[in-house]
Amino acid sequence: MSGADQPSTNGDQDPVDEFDWIDRCLRPLAADAPEAFGLLDDAAAIPARPGFDLIVSKDAIVEGVHFLPSDPLDRVARKLLRTNLSDLAAKGAEPYGYFLAIAWPFSNSGWERRRAFAAGLAADQADLGLKLLGGDTVSTPGPLTASATILGWSPQGRMVRRSGARPGDLVLVTGSIGDGALGLRAARGEEVGVTEAESTWLRDRYQLPQPRLGLGEALRAHASAAADVSDGLIADAGRIAEASGMRLTIDLARMPLSLAASHWLALQADPGEARAALAVGGDDYEILCTASAEAAPGLCAAAEALGMPMTEVGFVSAGQGAWVLADGHPIRVQRAGWRHGG
Amino acid sequence: MSGADQPSTNGDQDPVDEFDWIDRCLRPLAADAPEAFGLLDDAAAIPARPGFDLIVSKDAIVEGVHFLPSDPLDRVARKLLRTNLSDLAAKGAEPYGYFLAIAWPFSNSGWERRRAFAAGLAADQADLGLKLLGGDTVSTPGPLTASATILGWSPQGRMVRRSGARPGDLVLVTGSIGDGALGLRAARGEEVGVTEAESTWLRDRYQLPQPRLGLGEALRAHASAAADVSDGLIADAGRIAEASGMRLTIDLARMPLSLAASHWLALQADPGEARAALAVGGDDYEILCTASAEAAPGLCAAAEALGMPMTEVGFVSAGQGAWVLADGHPIRVQRAGWRHGG
Repeated sequence: MSGADQPSTNGDQDPVDEFDWIDRCLRPLAADAPEAFGLLDDAAAIPARPGFDLIVSKDAIVEGVHFLPSDPLDRVARKLLRTNLSDLAAKGAEPYGYFLAIAWPFSNSGWERRRAFAAGLAADQADLGLKLLGGDTVSTPGPLTASATILGWSPQGRMVRRSGARPGDLVLVTGSIGDGALGLRAARGEEVGVTEAESTWLRDRYQLPQPRLGLGEALRAHASAAADVSDGLIADAGRIAEASGMRLTIDLARMPLSLAASHWLALQADPGEARAALAVGGDDYEILCTASAEAAPGLCAAAEALGMPMTEVGFVSAGQGAWVLADGHPIRVQRAGWRHGG
Repeated sequence: MSGADQPSTNGDQDPVDEFDWIDRCLRPLAADAPEAFGLLDDAAAIPARPGFDLIVSKDAIVEGVHFLPSDPLDRVARKLLRTNLSDLAAKGAEPYGYFLAIAWPFSNSGWERRRAFAAGLAADQADLGLKLLGGDTVSTPGPLTASATILGWSPQGRMVRRSGARPGDLVLVTGSIGDGALGLRAARGEEVGVTEAESTWLRDRYQLPQPRLGLGEALRAHASAAADVSDGLIADAGRIAEASGMRLTIDLARMPLSLAASHWLALQADPGEARAALAVGGDDYEILCTASAEAAPGLCAAAEALGMPMTEVGFVSAGQGAWVLADGHPIRVQRAGWRHGG
């Protein structure tokens, strides 16, 4: 692991040397990782696991863009791990470890915030089967910025890709869609119109998504393509469509909703438009996948057994792009929004 | 690879959609990497190479902290790869590929800058034997921030670590020390006092360090410990000392200097202090290593054959920390600067 020598300051008090932070807060996170050499080296050495592929993904977050300045930093750290784990989950890979790069703002990076961030990492490592393998900690005149490079194992050549959807396949999604977008509003303190308890539940769904780990074997056995829903159901369906060279059609009426989102929807003046807004909202971190009609029941049964209900929301056909059925009419969805198609 | 849907803008003109940038500029960088699936997936799948370890390092850079706003962006991209490659070189690993995360400022991230950054990556990929494997591109209200997670291969269990220095070992360093610190001044437009040609050469050393690749086999065969010189000769010697539980003593009089740095030194009023400043300056990206007296000649011969002169600059003894001999007096160097020791 590497760091910068310049101390950051919290105003004029509570200065933090990056190496002290590594020593006190990060090194314990690598205690179970002999391959990380106690974070005392410039690199980690990951032994090959014959018969397996190392599955690697890397996502970055920026304060004010991907999380709110008011979000507690332990939750920001946990969300960073969870959103990266969500990629592994959708690829059918088993979590292994991660590298962290973090740029701390010059002016607001004292021990309290550093400890909170590390405590969030520690909590989720333990829960989700990860270990810190290395990284870099630096200072920035800008907002808090972090990235995790996450590693997992998958049997060789068996990673579930975006590109395998075939005509006639069903489109399936775990859990519920739209909670992330509503949760962002709740986290911002906006009035969502639902009960206090529902609002808190939605905020938690936004701040602490649950990566759908454990489905790996079933996805590898049954799914033809998969991706996690990070940028919105429709956007991510569009990416499976693009990678597969297919058309994915999503029936918005079948889109699974949580009780809180259903409550919110019932309060909206234009339910069709409101449902569409949930379909293009981000931060759901569910698994979107395709499977043949023969394979789908096995996949749904496996998901059900893990407590992850899976819902059929559409179908794959020859063509391209993501389409939705809204009030029975097919609409082609473009990247930047909605456009009526032929 | 992932990206954000929101277009960045360059003032009011030249908006860039992150996915367009991936399509047009980054995808070609993964053309030789079937394991990256054309950057169309959420992850890459790296096949195990039995008998090898995957060596992984991750470093981040921030505009205004690690590079100057005036540094050309193609050079910033190349330096990002080169500083990460320098870690691999010091570990004795063979370069393989990298993951990129980059946060582009909202206000100054048009096509010209994007193309320049990608062109820098492309140039160094070809020269240095790398391929892009994936990553994330996002937007930020802050300064340009990027990280590379770099991967290389090393025969299993043979990574050259920081922790192997033993009493009686010699301390050796490739190339010359202090050019990075002087080059930073030249890049800032400060008057360094040397010739115009020397000033340009120093600036190039700062902006385009040369990772000392090719020494891997010799390091694995002969070195007891190694690290690259990124934070300054003394700071990095201190880290080898810490990881090895040893004392490293550096004789400043033996520190190898380039012609340009020698010229600069001759112009200084206090040559002792000036030499010390070069020893604690960063951005040299040479390899600092230790080897027994028996092994050192073989290592130096191998380095010489590769056109990388290696100089003996000190020795390892029982104790701790980095010490320097300056005018014959041993001085213990602390993290934050210089402190006289007993």
